[in-house]
Amino acid sequence: MKDLQFDYTKAVRAEQMTAIRPAVEKAMSTLTTGSGAGNDFIGWLSLPKDIEEQIADIEATAKLLREENEMIVCIGIGGSYLGAKAVNEALLSSFSQLEGNKPQVIYAGQNIGEDYLYELQTLLRNRKFGIISISKSGTTTEPALAFRLLKTQLEQQQGKESAKKNIVCITDRKRGALRTLATQEGYKTYVIEDNIGGRFSVLSPVGLLPIACAGFDIRSLIEGAKRMMDICALPFDENPAMQYAAARNILYQQEGKKVELLANFHPKLHYVSEWWKQLYGESEGKDGKAIFPASVDFTTDLHSMGQYIQDGERHLMETVISVEKPNHEVIFPHDEQNLDGLNFLAGKRVDEVNKMAELGTMLAHVDGGVPNMKFTLPCLNEYYLGQMIYMFEFACGISGYMLEVNPFNQPGVEAYKKNMFALLDKPGYEEESKAIRARL
Amino acid sequence: MKDLQFDYTKAVRAEQMTAIRPAVEKAMSTLTTGSGAGNDFIGWLSLPKDIEEQIADIEATAKLLREENEMIVCIGIGGSYLGAKAVNEALLSSFSQLEGNKPQVIYAGQNIGEDYLYELQTLLRNRKFGIISISKSGTTTEPALAFRLLKTQLEQQQGKESAKKNIVCITDRKRGALRTLATQEGYKTYVIEDNIGGRFSVLSPVGLLPIACAGFDIRSLIEGAKRMMDICALPFDENPAMQYAAARNILYQQEGKKVELLANFHPKLHYVSEWWKQLYGESEGKDGKAIFPASVDFTTDLHSMGQYIQDGERHLMETVISVEKPNHEVIFPHDEQNLDGLNFLAGKRVDEVNKMAELGTMLAHVDGGVPNMKFTLPCLNEYYLGQMIYMFEFACGISGYMLEVNPFNQPGVEAYKKNMFALLDKPGYEEESKAIRARL
Repeated sequence: MKDLQFDYTKAVRAEQMTAIRPAVEKAMSTLTTGSGAGNDFIGWLSLPKDIEEQIADIEATAKLLREENEMIVCIGIGGSYLGAKAVNEALLSSFSQLEGNKPQVIYAGQNIGEDYLYELQTLLRNRKFGIISISKSGTTTEPALAFRLLKTQLEQQQGKESAKKNIVCITDRKRGALRTLATQEGYKTYVIEDNIGGRFSVLSPVGLLPIACAGFDIRSLIEGAKRMMDICALPFDENPAMQYAAARNILYQQEGKKVELLANFHPKLHYVSEWWKQLYGESEGKDGKAIFPASVDFTTDLHSMGQYIQDGERHLMETVISVEKPNHEVIFPHDEQNLDGLNFLAGKRVDEVNKMAELGTMLAHVDGGVPNMKFTLPCLNEYYLGQMIYMFEFACGISGYMLEVNPFNQPGVEAYKKNMFALLDKPGYEEESKAIRARL
Repeated sequence: MKDLQFDYTKAVRAEQMTAIRPAVEKAMSTLTTGSGAGNDFIGWLSLPKDIEEQIADIEATAKLLREENEMIVCIGIGGSYLGAKAVNEALLSSFSQLEGNKPQVIYAGQNIGEDYLYELQTLLRNRKFGIISISKSGTTTEPALAFRLLKTQLEQQQGKESAKKNIVCITDRKRGALRTLATQEGYKTYVIEDNIGGRFSVLSPVGLLPIACAGFDIRSLIEGAKRMMDICALPFDENPAMQYAAARNILYQQEGKKVELLANFHPKLHYVSEWWKQLYGESEGKDGKAIFPASVDFTTDLHSMGQYIQDGERHLMETVISVEKPNHEVIFPHDEQNLDGLNFLAGKRVDEVNKMAELGTMLAHVDGGVPNMKFTLPCLNEYYLGQMIYMFEFACGISGYMLEVNPFNQPGVEAYKKNMFALLDKPGYEEESKAIRARL
């Protein structure tokens, strides 16, 4: 069976890769031996193997939730929902919501939009729904707020006993508000291990339960990740994670490329890019450094960001996720009149056009001074998404250590929260409230 | 009645604004007198007034399409769909597709995804649907390909006569494949004027018809744009478009801020940011310069990009679109047990929490070295979206001239197309085909 492939030859030179290899190996060793900063957060390294014993239980829970409900609301923010959403959107039909398939997995607690929550509550009125509440502490404002609202609604609609059977919590093993509540109410729970941070949690119950609830094969996802664990243990020349970490470090440190565009030619990968942005942005964006992670969906965005990429400020690098074979076939039809001049495409698969757009774009961007890296997935399924997820995570750990940051903390995320709590007069923030009021 | 407001005081100093004022006034004069590069593409300047006589006709067409169809497929790419999608997504319920409202406006021709087109054709099978086909030439690959596929399907499903009544073309007045076809088949048509480029076309039939088809009030949208025309004629101190162009130019040219984040705290504005990215990226990204336009949806992305924004490479500026009042009300409930510790929010509107997140974020980012600009919309409706659209367009024209580029061309978009056509052996590209094959 094929594996995910990586091509860096349109981005960096062979001698640059040879020169940086010792630094990559050192960073990888720091990661795998657990000798670097943040080493209490590397539990995700062995997750594909460690999680296997929980899969049957997760599948059983998903089956129950799916049988009982029209909608399953996944409550979480950041790493608590992005991985699941990335996989689900990649695998669902582009028009899943319009097709009326049941159950639908929908998301909440990832914003504080009053209109969003009102419309969500309206949608759920008189519908059978379940809740997956994902939060290590249970007190992160966005998900906690959504959970209180929806738990209340569920109990009102279905009664407290039925609600209990349709709420699952994924949280800390012992501590925290959500653990306490779950114990008290007797909710089914899964554990977020202490050594796995949110953005590295998609292969834990955090990602697996919502993915299984959407009807996808989490065994295959984990199989793919396991395969990539083996690949990530290979030497530099056969190791896409090491190569990717190396190439982007060269482009940032030596070539002054400050923005990385993750590009796809498959619209369903949009949320894979959102997941990737969190993974790299939050792991590396500290101490005044790091590549700015951005994303584009092609060919769509060739008609919006294409001009800039081709001719704007030369601070860009581009990483393409290419899917070798689509899952469906559409043959382009012949037209007698050919007014649109497209008969030269007649009889071809639509994907052939897409692939030539991809190749043509790579050539144009490289000509325009945008180095191009490329990952190829043989097809879009659980197995290769599992490979890709683990590879990006592993590369991120290496990349962070090469940049000499702690890839596993996120101190900067607290800054807005502290101000928000002060402004909202949260108990315990009395001093901060005074200070911020004085400032305004 | 209130108008859209702009605050630059957390981004640039008063003396910087005073110093740059003459340059802004000069650029604005270049724009409004039509004396600059690309001056054959400034028809959008008076569009809010020029379009009024067509509104009733557009409304009548939308009414027919809405009455006849379950789905209305809007076919277009780049500026041919982003404006309509931005307005529609901003005004629709967050769960419109799940609510089963009819008709639904959906989009095609904005990618070459074989799975996307397969799933679209499957969705439309045995459903009544109409098509709005938007293309100046009728030969842009993505929309032309989608149109040929869907037109064929519509004729097969409903017969040629019924299909004719449910296809509307928005295209060149006289020339091009789509005009020829529309004339031949007797389709209803609207004109894309020669002096209005795609990314400035949302207030023309290109945007107005799909917006009316989604059930929104295009008169109010145009009223807002007209009001903003008047505001954009005011002096610097009262003119948000001039001020925005000034502030971002200062940040780019004087402060080295190379990336602009358009941020919202209202998830429905996601596609407004996509529209804005095309507007600024395509207008300014040329000659090796311009701010890289990126976007974030808050508070969602504070848990993905927040760390980078707070502490990463200091090349960022931030522009917030704030919505003063939500359209719905959700009061946060009291909970006897208060395990989540959120009772300090009980009795408050959810939006109050969101607003404090917004204020707290602004303070944190400014403290972290990210200059913050802010637009405030009194509420999210057609009128204020109309104001915002015209303001961003007008500011973009000024900004482009200040950067000394032609804001109205997009030569770089051709590069990938040329390669793609050569690779696909399009007639007329024989030389390019030979050259590109030799290169590979």
